[in-house]
Amino acid sequence: MKKLTFIFFAALILSSTVKGQTDGIANKDNSNIGAPASSNVRASKYPMILPDSRAVFHVKAPDAQKVQLDLGKKYDMIKNNEGIWEVTTDSLTEGFHYYSLLIDGVAVADPSSESFYGMGRMASGIEVPFKGDGYYAVKNVAHGDVRMKRYYSSVTKTWRRFYIYTPAGYDANINQKYPVLYLMHGGGEDERGWSTQGKTDLILDNLIAEKKAKPMLIVMLDGNVGNGGFSESSLKAFESELKECIIPVVEKEYRVKTDSKNRALAGLSMGGIQTLYAGIKNTQLFSYLGVFSSGWLPNLDGVAEAQYEFMKTNSGLINTNLKQFWISQGGKEDIAHRNCQIMLSKFKDLKIKYSYSEYPGGHTWPVWRNNLYNFAQLLFK
Amino acid sequence: MKKLTFIFFAALILSSTVKGQTDGIANKDNSNIGAPASSNVRASKYPMILPDSRAVFHVKAPDAQKVQLDLGKKYDMIKNNEGIWEVTTDSLTEGFHYYSLLIDGVAVADPSSESFYGMGRMASGIEVPFKGDGYYAVKNVAHGDVRMKRYYSSVTKTWRRFYIYTPAGYDANINQKYPVLYLMHGGGEDERGWSTQGKTDLILDNLIAEKKAKPMLIVMLDGNVGNGGFSESSLKAFESELKECIIPVVEKEYRVKTDSKNRALAGLSMGGIQTLYAGIKNTQLFSYLGVFSSGWLPNLDGVAEAQYEFMKTNSGLINTNLKQFWISQGGKEDIAHRNCQIMLSKFKDLKIKYSYSEYPGGHTWPVWRNNLYNFAQLLFK
Repeated sequence: MKKLTFIFFAALILSSTVKGQTDGIANKDNSNIGAPASSNVRASKYPMILPDSRAVFHVKAPDAQKVQLDLGKKYDMIKNNEGIWEVTTDSLTEGFHYYSLLIDGVAVADPSSESFYGMGRMASGIEVPFKGDGYYAVKNVAHGDVRMKRYYSSVTKTWRRFYIYTPAGYDANINQKYPVLYLMHGGGEDERGWSTQGKTDLILDNLIAEKKAKPMLIVMLDGNVGNGGFSESSLKAFESELKECIIPVVEKEYRVKTDSKNRALAGLSMGGIQTLYAGIKNTQLFSYLGVFSSGWLPNLDGVAEAQYEFMKTNSGLINTNLKQFWISQGGKEDIAHRNCQIMLSKFKDLKIKYSYSEYPGGHTWPVWRNNLYNFAQLLFK
Repeated sequence: MKKLTFIFFAALILSSTVKGQTDGIANKDNSNIGAPASSNVRASKYPMILPDSRAVFHVKAPDAQKVQLDLGKKYDMIKNNEGIWEVTTDSLTEGFHYYSLLIDGVAVADPSSESFYGMGRMASGIEVPFKGDGYYAVKNVAHGDVRMKRYYSSVTKTWRRFYIYTPAGYDANINQKYPVLYLMHGGGEDERGWSTQGKTDLILDNLIAEKKAKPMLIVMLDGNVGNGGFSESSLKAFESELKECIIPVVEKEYRVKTDSKNRALAGLSMGGIQTLYAGIKNTQLFSYLGVFSSGWLPNLDGVAEAQYEFMKTNSGLINTNLKQFWISQGGKEDIAHRNCQIMLSKFKDLKIKYSYSEYPGGHTWPVWRNNLYNFAQLLFK
């Protein structure tokens, strides 16, 4: 990270002289003006981040007819004499972005980058540094572990897995018990999402070192239960998995506090719907709910309406039990923004207390990292 | 796993009627005769394993000119009217195999499979079930955790990571100390290799449950130190990383026994060279060495010769210190076989005691899983 930062700043000094030189022009050597993305596989020079947050992508494909980069926006790549296709993007926004290469129309992962389970497959990701990214940098602080834990689910009748963050000191402080945040990924992702794309361990390591968050365990579970998605049967299966399998395993195998004041539930997108479904019904179990980039969808066969009805009857109980009902969106460009606003106006009618904030960036991991950073600071205090 | 086994056996019943129907013919629906590989991403039907261990691969690429499957052997895929390319392979050997799709000549990961860091990039893998694969099946036994541990390396001056297997009961048995196996991946792989491709936790969970192996910790470290590869400077850097950084961190942060009788060192391919280099010189630290699919390479600027010279002078000490010097090859088809035989004849001349075995399968993960299975049973007894 230090090395990258150094190259980044060295490059910054040169930036005024190079602007515009690489746009759409293949066959340039950019190695003295940019730095490999930290998401590259070992020793790969490309994708390369330029000082102004544009990025240069390369792929060798001498026999391909057409190669594109798909970063949400599609870029045509241009082939040079050596069969290397190149493109320089527009300036990219902060943090982690999924992307694909389209090689003669087939969306594949870039062999130069790490892959991440997202979009329902192993997809490429690029990490764009920015001025405010220190909160998930690897710093000289005490670091917790992330553990991969297998358990048998009596709901799905299969062996499943969750990831669990244990803060620094967990092994040594054998008489200490910890509060727990249960944290859910989005659709097309799994238990790896929050650990890898989300940088959960680093965000918490840094917050705990600065005493901005309480030491806590974070269970990053696999929310793909039932037929998946948002049907009531899937949401019910998720609730059962959480209550009957995951929480009991965590409370048996780890030193955790087991009262509602020391349990939180949060999730992004699909995981936000799961939080709404399993959280609102169970405020006797969870004192903190976090809903990131989510909101009830229309046409869920009455699931939302049933929840609003439950809220109407139980608003007093919900408001008393929840110390935080924390709802956030990635600004107006977040695809969940509209559904969320409709839901919030309903909450207002029902006199449900919540807090609401926006962090620009749309429906993306940079927003959710920031959500975790802010939400974790409010927990268990 | 159970579900897959069921489908597998259901398919077996049908197999006599379907043999030969899918060879090289696109546009067939194979779903009633095969089962999705366990290495597929969620919900992907292909790659599909047929009852006779052939596999059917699919990829949608309507605009590609040529698509091949590279499983070591290259197969031409054939396009159907819907733009789906298909091929049925020969019967595949047991266990895990890396593979690529070649889309108009570009080697990429298959979007239908999980990706694994190997060959220096995120590569596809396919898991082929076989009769003897129960030793790494997920069974109803007590399971250990695999933890991802960050540490600062004073050798590389960077934050690095190892994976560490802690056996079932490690958290509860707070007065117990454990022996440790330090285990290295091959070239083009990293600390994820033994955990993911190697199924280390499952192999040990099953062995420990059957009391065939002692409960132990296994440190799966990142052997990519120095300039990489086999130069003496890289091997020296590796030795420093192991002795000055990794072992001290493990012995500080985990409850482990710290005498040589309770330390083992092993590795595959490049990791076998690292074991030879750092192990033979340090038998006061390690009573067990495991060298899988490896052997000194010629032309390493005298590194092997210096080691033979050291062995000549210290053969008595080495033979006394080592309780196991366990060397194995994946049969004659293992690319390291010849170098290993030359090395072993040298060991004989030098009167160095070792054990030698072969498990057919070449230079591949099925061999190394089996190596770990056998080697672990010999340790710390």
